Amino acid sequence: MSILLSRSSRSSSLLCKRVLQTKTTFTNITSTTTTNIMSPSILINTPVYDLKSFHTGPVIGGGLKRSAPKYNFEPAEPLVISDLNEHVLNAKYAVRGSIPMRAEELNVQMQKDPKSVPFDHIINANIGNPQQLNQKPLTFYREVLSLVQYPDLLESLEKEGASSKVYKPDAIRRARKLLNAIGGSVGAYSTSQGVFEIRQTVADFITKRDGGELAYPEDIFLTAGASAAVNYLLSTLCRGRETGVLIPIPQYPLYTATLALNNSNALPYYLEEKNGWSTNTQDIEKVVKKAIHDNVKPSVLVVINPGNPTGAVLSRESIEKIFEVASKYGIVVIADEVYQENIFGDVKFVSMKKVLREMQRNHPGQFDDVQLASLHSTSKGVSGECGQRGGYMELTGFRPEIRQVLLKLASISLCPVVTGQVLIDLMVSPPQPGDESYAQDQLERDTIHAELDKRASLLYKTFNSLEGIECQKPQGAMYLFPSIMMPFKAVQEAHRLEMTPDEFYCKELLEATGICTVPGSGFGQVTGTYHLRTTFLAPGEKWINDWANFHKKFYNKYRD
Amino acid sequence: MSILLSRSSRSSSLLCKRVLQTKTTFTNITSTTTTNIMSPSILINTPVYDLKSFHTGPVIGGGLKRSAPKYNFEPAEPLVISDLNEHVLNAKYAVRGSIPMRAEELNVQMQKDPKSVPFDHIINANIGNPQQLNQKPLTFYREVLSLVQYPDLLESLEKEGASSKVYKPDAIRRARKLLNAIGGSVGAYSTSQGVFEIRQTVADFITKRDGGELAYPEDIFLTAGASAAVNYLLSTLCRGRETGVLIPIPQYPLYTATLALNNSNALPYYLEEKNGWSTNTQDIEKVVKKAIHDNVKPSVLVVINPGNPTGAVLSRESIEKIFEVASKYGIVVIADEVYQENIFGDVKFVSMKKVLREMQRNHPGQFDDVQLASLHSTSKGVSGECGQRGGYMELTGFRPEIRQVLLKLASISLCPVVTGQVLIDLMVSPPQPGDESYAQDQLERDTIHAELDKRASLLYKTFNSLEGIECQKPQGAMYLFPSIMMPFKAVQEAHRLEMTPDEFYCKELLEATGICTVPGSGFGQVTGTYHLRTTFLAPGEKWINDWANFHKKFYNKYRD
Repeated sequence: MSILLSRSSRSSSLLCKRVLQTKTTFTNITSTTTTNIMSPSILINTPVYDLKSFHTGPVIGGGLKRSAPKYNFEPAEPLVISDLNEHVLNAKYAVRGSIPMRAEELNVQMQKDPKSVPFDHIINANIGNPQQLNQKPLTFYREVLSLVQYPDLLESLEKEGASSKVYKPDAIRRARKLLNAIGGSVGAYSTSQGVFEIRQTVADFITKRDGGELAYPEDIFLTAGASAAVNYLLSTLCRGRETGVLIPIPQYPLYTATLALNNSNALPYYLEEKNGWSTNTQDIEKVVKKAIHDNVKPSVLVVINPGNPTGAVLSRESIEKIFEVASKYGIVVIADEVYQENIFGDVKFVSMKKVLREMQRNHPGQFDDVQLASLHSTSKGVSGECGQRGGYMELTGFRPEIRQVLLKLASISLCPVVTGQVLIDLMVSPPQPGDESYAQDQLERDTIHAELDKRASLLYKTFNSLEGIECQKPQGAMYLFPSIMMPFKAVQEAHRLEMTPDEFYCKELLEATGICTVPGSGFGQVTGTYHLRTTFLAPGEKWINDWANFHKKFYNKYRD
Repeated sequence: MSILLSRSSRSSSLLCKRVLQTKTTFTNITSTTTTNIMSPSILINTPVYDLKSFHTGPVIGGGLKRSAPKYNFEPAEPLVISDLNEHVLNAKYAVRGSIPMRAEELNVQMQKDPKSVPFDHIINANIGNPQQLNQKPLTFYREVLSLVQYPDLLESLEKEGASSKVYKPDAIRRARKLLNAIGGSVGAYSTSQGVFEIRQTVADFITKRDGGELAYPEDIFLTAGASAAVNYLLSTLCRGRETGVLIPIPQYPLYTATLALNNSNALPYYLEEKNGWSTNTQDIEKVVKKAIHDNVKPSVLVVINPGNPTGAVLSRESIEKIFEVASKYGIVVIADEVYQENIFGDVKFVSMKKVLREMQRNHPGQFDDVQLASLHSTSKGVSGECGQRGGYMELTGFRPEIRQVLLKLASISLCPVVTGQVLIDLMVSPPQPGDESYAQDQLERDTIHAELDKRASLLYKTFNSLEGIECQKPQGAMYLFPSIMMPFKAVQEAHRLEMTPDEFYCKELLEATGICTVPGSGFGQVTGTYHLRTTFLAPGEKWINDWANFHKKFYNKYRD
């Protein structure tokens, strides 16, 4: 303790500040001891952040021995929030916002004292993170990834004549093909646009998916997930306050966050909940006209298809109408199609690219200059490889000089992670009939898909069986976005707690059941309506029952 | 051909535009046929970009049968450069600029006609990309990465009692430890700050590296290479034109590029070439004062140590002076220390964090509020795993609310690639004496290091043996940045070709020898001096001799 007493007053105040810092940084885990989060070499109850307590010089008469003051300036204060870029401050990303942060807090609390919460684990239904919820990675993917990381092993397997018990021959062949295309090592930077041969594979996939509408590797940019593509596109296309970007409401908050970072205007167009969250294309043109009237240039239109958070799948007619507006007003279309594999029932996914090509053919000259950026990712679908950061965008109709600017911007980040590029290759070119991995791969895919389909249905039915919840039938993606009719008393209680009513519901749900969701306010919703987004990725049915029970209690408690 | 003839005039003009587009996008490979870069399914000499030639309707009387015009609006033109964000347009990144683009062009040309160039391969000395130049990845890293990608294999190896011929027991143990820490799969998103246990390992590494100066996992952010950290920091700290960021000249162009993107001011401080590219700290304070006088707030100071492109290593005295300025003016210091492992001869690397902690202890109160962000990466050193995108930053002295903003910004990109996080763990915690992989790992590290050291020396000696080249002795990093005294006639010739003289030299060098470098103008240099940056990663000595011969010829040709 003598060291503690020996600090100068400035050191003591620094101590307070640093301890405060620890607490505030870990708002979510303030109730824990330091043992879990600190270096194990530091004793509990030691003021861990005061570095000087470990290093001060010899103590003389209770005061700190100071060397002669070499420096005679007054040190400046550290930065405060108002010193930062206001656009960064304005960006919000609810998927990792207050409810998920509270969930982390409860998780730590639970590990300390399992009985302090009425559930035994957190169900992370806030984010489309399949493998966190025990979705098994596809074996073929992981065999190939394992081999490309270890070329010596690959070589020895090839010498043995591919008789490995562990790696299937087609995985060995694919790993070799990819390593050759990459240039020998996934540890080298690739070109910033991505490995050419992999882009060729993507182009072949698109051509096939779109019924023969040709795609070209020059139009493909491999990216670190679809998020990086959105970042490149909006950074390049946004010119600050003069620019408007049409986004669907509800939307995936990446879009509003990126627009905030670029200080550009989100121009909302509202999806029609009562029509299964369909897109009202007449509304879109109204939004465009209003923006022009307000001196904002509507430069970009974002389409999320299948919808996040809505799960709706766009009809061909809606897509055509969107391109009509795009062509008429010269608006770039961003087609976020990362959920194209997540389609349920007899719904069909039609890519925007395919429709655009058909319109170009059927109406010569009328749609040739439409600019479309289509996004895809390895994070969703049956792949679910979120942590591997694989993605691509396909550019259609952009002038070459615009593409060069996008490429330059990508080059500042050097290259997309090369193993993510490998994964893109595997996603768009899975084992085919006759390949050694085919049967198992199909089985794994079918199992994952059937499980998701089943849980989506069950959750949908459960919601609609409950008083005060309405939910549209899921057509695609990984989410449901039910509407909660909020009892007046619940609205009052939320107000008292300085929360939005949907946030209040999500918080109560989390604390009662461990189910972590995201309030609808994070995605946008018609004023006076309340929603939440939940994935249906979590295994089992118990959590769905828990939710139903929670909801009934909530409704009974707050019923008007 | 009837299809070609059948196009409407608008379609024909579209055809021209699309062909032009192909050519312009691939400026670098215009002289090739389309076979290499196009889908193999497309015939040579087919106007490959005219999609309609494959899809037009039935031909009637030489004219295109058009459906009744359903749309009666005039389509808008596609975007032109001036429609884009001017800050993105202003960003330059020379490491992947005109000379490397010309190299790609030659590479394609060479594959078509090997005799059309006077060399047999391109030597990519423009970018620190060790594994592209055959530096072998460390075996231990790759064993672990191979296992974390394939948990089923890991499990079966564990059941066999770790008797694998292919994987060493410590690699198996580490893979299990990491998978447990990650939560079971590298395919799941991690927290946006990175896996806690890996951050703990990083903190332990820093504590050890810095002779016991404690580091904490809460201060560590795992990032996709150091580039992502620079992006987060400058995006958050820059407030447009009012902000100034001190950068060394010459600098790594990521900094000027990122400043351009953020529309903030680069405040150059010049390194002293004659003193081995040392940092003149008096100059730094002058730059700070001038900025304040000019109403620009000097918010950040970037230090690259060891230097890129200079190879210089900062002395402890210089670091102390830098912190003096930082404390006095409240300037955030970014310490780009990605080359901390690349140290040659008897030079010692001292981290800025270590010096800061010592100053805080020795001068209580005087340096407590200094804000430091220290960057590291798996791309350099003996790791050289560029394509895997691993990195971290350590934050010191920032207020908690500032760190929260950085974390929010990181969360918009969801998470750093999880295998890159794994690689960070391996880099900061390599096999130790007693571990099964230790001996081989040491041998591999020593071999790589000795090779680099040898080649750095040879290249340095060669440069200084040549008339008109002066080169400072390399202390660290992967580069030499020699000064070229440019003969007047060469300057004239460059002027005629509308190039800078250093760009002209690099172009001539490339076309004569295949050696690809980056002109000094991409990094900044004192007006009237000319430099280039070259890595010394390329294996062998022949290219060094080729360079010497080229230089003599160049000098003879352009001698005044």
